[in-house]
Amino acid sequence: MSERPRRLSRRTLLASGAAGAAGLAVGAAGASAVGKDPDSQDLGRSTVPFRGAHQAGVTTAPQTHATFVAFDLRDDVDADGLRRLLRIWTDDIERLMSGRPGLTDTEPELASRPDRLTVTVGVGAKVVEVAGAEVPGWLGPLPEFVIDRLESRWSGGDLILQVCSDDELSVSHAVRVLTKEARTFVAVRWVQRGFRGPVKGPDLPRNLMGQVDGTAAPAASEHDRLVWVGDGSRQLFGAQPAWLEGGTTMVVRRIAMDLDTWDELDRPSRERTIGRRLKDGRPLTGGSITDDPDLEARDSNGLEVIDPFAHVRRARTEDRTQQFLRRPYNYDDPPASGDLTNAGLVFVTFQADVDRQFIPIQARLAELDLLNQWTTPIGSAVFAILPGTGAGGFLGEALFS
Amino acid sequence: MSERPRRLSRRTLLASGAAGAAGLAVGAAGASAVGKDPDSQDLGRSTVPFRGAHQAGVTTAPQTHATFVAFDLRDDVDADGLRRLLRIWTDDIERLMSGRPGLTDTEPELASRPDRLTVTVGVGAKVVEVAGAEVPGWLGPLPEFVIDRLESRWSGGDLILQVCSDDELSVSHAVRVLTKEARTFVAVRWVQRGFRGPVKGPDLPRNLMGQVDGTAAPAASEHDRLVWVGDGSRQLFGAQPAWLEGGTTMVVRRIAMDLDTWDELDRPSRERTIGRRLKDGRPLTGGSITDDPDLEARDSNGLEVIDPFAHVRRARTEDRTQQFLRRPYNYDDPPASGDLTNAGLVFVTFQADVDRQFIPIQARLAELDLLNQWTTPIGSAVFAILPGTGAGGFLGEALFS
Ligand code: HEM
Ligand code: HEM
Repeated sequence: MSERPRRLSRRTLLASGAAGAAGLAVGAAGASAVGKDPDSQDLGRSTVPFRGAHQAGVTTAPQTHATFVAFDLRDDVDADGLRRLLRIWTDDIERLMSGRPGLTDTEPELASRPDRLTVTVGVGAKVVEVAGAEVPGWLGPLPEFVIDRLESRWSGGDLILQVCSDDELSVSHAVRVLTKEARTFVAVRWVQRGFRGPVKGPDLPRNLMGQVDGTAAPAASEHDRLVWVGDGSRQLFGAQPAWLEGGTTMVVRRIAMDLDTWDELDRPSRERTIGRRLKDGRPLTGGSITDDPDLEARDSNGLEVIDPFAHVRRARTEDRTQQFLRRPYNYDDPPASGDLTNAGLVFVTFQADVDRQFIPIQARLAELDLLNQWTTPIGSAVFAILPGTGAGGFLGEALFS
Repeated sequence: MSERPRRLSRRTLLASGAAGAAGLAVGAAGASAVGKDPDSQDLGRSTVPFRGAHQAGVTTAPQTHATFVAFDLRDDVDADGLRRLLRIWTDDIERLMSGRPGLTDTEPELASRPDRLTVTVGVGAKVVEVAGAEVPGWLGPLPEFVIDRLESRWSGGDLILQVCSDDELSVSHAVRVLTKEARTFVAVRWVQRGFRGPVKGPDLPRNLMGQVDGTAAPAASEHDRLVWVGDGSRQLFGAQPAWLEGGTTMVVRRIAMDLDTWDELDRPSRERTIGRRLKDGRPLTGGSITDDPDLEARDSNGLEVIDPFAHVRRARTEDRTQQFLRRPYNYDDPPASGDLTNAGLVFVTFQADVDRQFIPIQARLAELDLLNQWTTPIGSAVFAILPGTGAGGFLGEALFS
């Protein structure tokens, strides 16, 4: 009992400090996950609201499971067909997120445990074109980086569903319902599945390299400037097409980890690679986990404590608008014959502006980052995350106006 | 608050009636998962004891996640090498199950949240041979059934690890540690990953066809006769090799579901296929979920209420020794290009005697079972699950005596 306050405060820290959990205070999305006693067992019934200015699943505290499904739009689908698909999805996403079966759900019982289910819809250039709306320049493949070894089976796509829940059965069912009803409009292009530790409880979110991952993130108070497209972001980055107002942009990079060579490295070298401690995620320059690393600090020999090529140094610039929300999931798939593992990150970021926030940082990292020796981008895709929708509306409505 | 007693009693029902949860009362395995308030949030720290007469993970209430890894023994491994591997595994399984890092764990922080981690070790004929012990006749591929469409990539294996936990990160880490340290002895043959709903809470365990699955199961009081090899099973089925005393046998069948045609079927036909209701898993002949279907019951037209070819009728015989413990997991993998889904069951059973318990039932089902129209076995493997081990001992010790 005496430990409760500690647990709660550790969680509060996570909720404000960790990237994924960063949205707890913001908007409609994620609201119902807020302020719950982490020690209460909710029996899988808790829900995240669907309707609102923004879609859920962006600033929502990350659920333990995610499936990302990218689709190709069939060539014969026109604006009318697209509108129909987006209406059907809107309707069923609202149902499923509230714990009700889809409209034509053939396994209605599988809908009863949403466990914070969120479904987030994004679109690629072809969809915007078919709808007859303005296609922004950034909505397409990222520039090629020298570190990339992209495979088409993990790249691209005209539409994406990001489906997250604390119960994998809930994810599986939602993917099934939404994929099935879309089949006359789209074909599945790729599916990526991921997992992470629970937000509840005292544990820090870790990736399969063992690192505390997702610590440094834009403060919730910055989301209106750095994450959501709107007045705030417009002042920083200029205008986006009107249909994206209230939306955001999503980058999905599949990044393989070479765990076998990583594990041969000693612990100090592994910590030097990142610039933070393995044990607790604190900066090598001290302070608490929410503190930024002190990039100026030098040791008794006059050497920089944070290596010049450490990931956390390379991943940030003086320009503090070059930040984004990271919402990564671990993947650990069956290895190819003869291999020991097939693991890495489904590295997902949300930002108001791909060109001015994501690309400069990715370019810096591609140029120099100690971590590159053990990580390889093998998939890449960019989507426009549609704005949220209010009562009676449907996702993507503004595309057609 | 007033709902608590109801929740608890529903869970008690599950714990006694559902296959996976059936072992709650038995042996060392599963003991610490017993009697926990389902409403308490255990923060991922709860453990299942490793040492005991039986291995954990058989009668343990099923965790939400499982990974099954089958290995081929390398040709140059002799009895000494095998003993070394089994000792290393024993040591690290004990550590990991108790929430401690493996001995040479390079990501020790990932071990802190076992969340009821269990690792269960089984062996195939080649391992028994190399150890110099008696190979029982049943330890090899099952007879071919006419429904089988087996693929070698999901079949066979000289060793298996069944790794289960309520936290997927815990499963992933344990698989990594145990696979890595075994690499000079074995090569990965196949990996199958599965999930199911939590045992906690009021929900019934369901598969991806939407059915309540795992209801009928041998009572816990029958485990010493029907599941574990020992005096009880000897009286029913005759002797097994001495090294298996305290162990059991495991059948792993990968069974694909054709969800697309299944979903076209109306609800009454789907219920008729099984013989139980979709809504709540009760027999079509009435009664509570723990009641057996009344196979004699007839409707007002004199027709059998449970179809002559219904799954639950075909899956049982008058001979009540022909029962086994089912501990299945759902799989839902990325579909092949052009397909909508790639889902089914990793169908896992434990029984004292493969020949006299499993095969007669599987043969009956292969011959006639309405369900066969929508399900296809695509993988198959049989293992001897080693006995548990007491203080100071190692798994499989008796193989070498
Ligand atoms: C497998 C690949 C990667 C791994 C394992 C990884 C791991 C980490 C870790 C452990 C941290 C320190 C803790 C934290 O603040 O979260 C971190 C920070 C960060 N990473 Fe990565 N990362 C990867 C790829 C990337 C990529 C591709 C980008 C950007 C394109 C990126 C951007 C960042 C940023 C912006 C920070 C915060 C830096 C700061 O402001 O302190 N990371 N990453
Ligand atoms: C994808 C394949 C399968 C599915 C979806 C499935 C589903 C079900 C369902 C819904 C039930 C009724 C509820 C329950 O008692 O658990 C059931 C019962 C049962 N199934 Fe299956 N099953 C499958 C394959 C098999 C196979 C391959 C076997 C045996 C080789 C088997 C043996 C049994 C047995 C013994 C029962 C209990 C019958 C009784 O005593 O009432 N099932 N199954």
